[in-house]
Amino acid sequence: MIQQIHPETIREALKKNKIKTENYKGFEYLRFTDDFKDIPRGTVIFKSFVAWGYPHIGRIFHLSTGLREQFSHPFYVEEKVDGYNTRIFLHEDQILALSRGGYVCPFTTDRILEFIDKRFFEDNPDLILCAEVAGPENPYVDEHPPYIKEDIKVFVFDIMKKNSQKFLPYSEKERLIEKYGLPSVERFGTYTVEDTDKIKKLLKRLNEEGREGVVFKENSERDKRVKYVTLYSSLKDIEITSLNLLGLPSDYFTNRLLRLSLFMEEEGISADQELFLSVGKAFLEGLLKAIELSKRERKVYRTFRCKFRTKENALLFLENIKHASSQVQIIERSLEKEEDFWVLEFDRVYLNMTGLLGHLLAGGSIFD
Amino acid sequence: MIQQIHPETIREALKKNKIKTENYKGFEYLRFTDDFKDIPRGTVIFKSFVAWGYPHIGRIFHLSTGLREQFSHPFYVEEKVDGYNTRIFLHEDQILALSRGGYVCPFTTDRILEFIDKRFFEDNPDLILCAEVAGPENPYVDEHPPYIKEDIKVFVFDIMKKNSQKFLPYSEKERLIEKYGLPSVERFGTYTVEDTDKIKKLLKRLNEEGREGVVFKENSERDKRVKYVTLYSSLKDIEITSLNLLGLPSDYFTNRLLRLSLFMEEEGISADQELFLSVGKAFLEGLLKAIELSKRERKVYRTFRCKFRTKENALLFLENIKHASSQVQIIERSLEKEEDFWVLEFDRVYLNMTGLLGHLLAGGSIFD
Repeated sequence: MIQQIHPETIREALKKNKIKTENYKGFEYLRFTDDFKDIPRGTVIFKSFVAWGYPHIGRIFHLSTGLREQFSHPFYVEEKVDGYNTRIFLHEDQILALSRGGYVCPFTTDRILEFIDKRFFEDNPDLILCAEVAGPENPYVDEHPPYIKEDIKVFVFDIMKKNSQKFLPYSEKERLIEKYGLPSVERFGTYTVEDTDKIKKLLKRLNEEGREGVVFKENSERDKRVKYVTLYSSLKDIEITSLNLLGLPSDYFTNRLLRLSLFMEEEGISADQELFLSVGKAFLEGLLKAIELSKRERKVYRTFRCKFRTKENALLFLENIKHASSQVQIIERSLEKEEDFWVLEFDRVYLNMTGLLGHLLAGGSIFD
Repeated sequence: MIQQIHPETIREALKKNKIKTENYKGFEYLRFTDDFKDIPRGTVIFKSFVAWGYPHIGRIFHLSTGLREQFSHPFYVEEKVDGYNTRIFLHEDQILALSRGGYVCPFTTDRILEFIDKRFFEDNPDLILCAEVAGPENPYVDEHPPYIKEDIKVFVFDIMKKNSQKFLPYSEKERLIEKYGLPSVERFGTYTVEDTDKIKKLLKRLNEEGREGVVFKENSERDKRVKYVTLYSSLKDIEITSLNLLGLPSDYFTNRLLRLSLFMEEEGISADQELFLSVGKAFLEGLLKAIELSKRERKVYRTFRCKFRTKENALLFLENIKHASSQVQIIERSLEKEEDFWVLEFDRVYLNMTGLLGHLLAGGSIFD
């Protein structure tokens, strides 16, 4: 089924500023910057096809009741990896990788063929791989799974067709992953709502291993999906982002605390000293670090490092992220050749946090 | 200086819904529901005079730089008590007490003459006492100073004139407190910015004693004020409100964490295990309690208890708070005569928390 986007819809979206024209190395494409009608943010229109945005997936906070409430058929269970979402495909004679928001990402595009066999796209020019990129040297996400010790890794979790919002059937996805030796998220098989105890055990193990959580995908025509994350993941979110406490959406922390508490309740994890300690630490250590940075360097920032095959892509990436957010300032630290790679180091300066802490440490007052 | 409010300003405020007509036992008054131009929220217009709203006071988060930045003259230091703000005055032949928002409060009005000598108002019919009401049996605030073991206490901290936004000079306030034996917040005397070390020591002691903090009041014509609170107070705020995690303004928790971290930094309190533990506990215990309440009783609430001299005032109070917030449901538990008092018990049901937890525990999903 080809899902074209009606020219009238595009005109309307342009008028409402929901579409932007972007440029990647000389060719232009249209990008939906927000959800618009039934079109998800990150949907991209190229000259010859549409790459639909990766859909939003609902989250359950309570496993046992959640599975019963959400599913009426057996479902697959897959690992949810803590990284960033990308869609990879052939565009004319290049393999491109889009960010969730629909930018052609110079970093992911630069590196992707180290992880994905090019033959997949030669044989299947109409398919789009949906994957997570994760690791300590990814340029977007401050967290990474503890089992990735360096650089990045790629984990395919879905396959779409160009011009279609639907995913290939699960078995077809598995066949292609197998055939082309694609790196994939760990797949735990199929379950039913009767297997809740088994799934709870699985989640308990994933939690102990420091993994983010799972995505459930119903084996049915509607292909219903929901996600569920571990206590570890919620705690890690708080720990990493407390440095930038004031730069996050208002409900960021309360949402994580809620996930974490309901995970405990469900898994019978008691509220012991160790857990209280971890939560307190997660909140305070980042904040105290921010205060220290503000006093010492007059800015609150975190340093990122990532590697590129070409210098051109590194510079293009830098240029792109400089304009990505008004709340973050990007400062290049270094770009140097190391063996086969160009290694880029840059800081994200958190402007809200820098501004407010600077004001308060200088003795300013606020009316709160 | 008499500060009248211009009839044109009142008409404008009425048109913009910044004024409401209220009724207390048959007489009407106008109440500013929001700040409007230079008129603070809680300002009340009676037939024969205006009771100006208690002004906003800026908060400093960092003591040593804050005092230098804010003050150019010596300043008084007073205890900040953790309760609710009230303004008390003679209206025709009754003593009335207003809430911060400008309601005549049937609870405070019912009880106030147990704490304040009536002769103050007989001798000074043009004066308004500004005071904090605090204690375990106050009907508004879930917290109370640990040194108040039962019921409530009243602490005068300012005196205003009717029809004026200014406070009496500090020495005049002290004279009247002395003369009429008024209960008052603890006054620590005058200091200058050179005394920062002494003030730090004072705050350290107040923190250890579980007190909220201090208000600084400049001894000068401009009567500049700022407030500063202890780590204890910030931690207590989190502990008390985590039960109603989702019902609070978005920056409630981040603001407390910031206060707390900067207090530590200033006072050289190290980030030890005990502190991490307290912060984690403060967040989690309330939340786990909310989950337990939601599972057991299908609602998240807290019970309040307070005592009235007359049954009529208790019923009027109940009626008033029922309409005070759309996010809180008031449920009466009991109203019974005990010795000289009518004892009212009621629940505040936190509707956001009740609704969301109910949805999630029933297996609902959310897109976050």
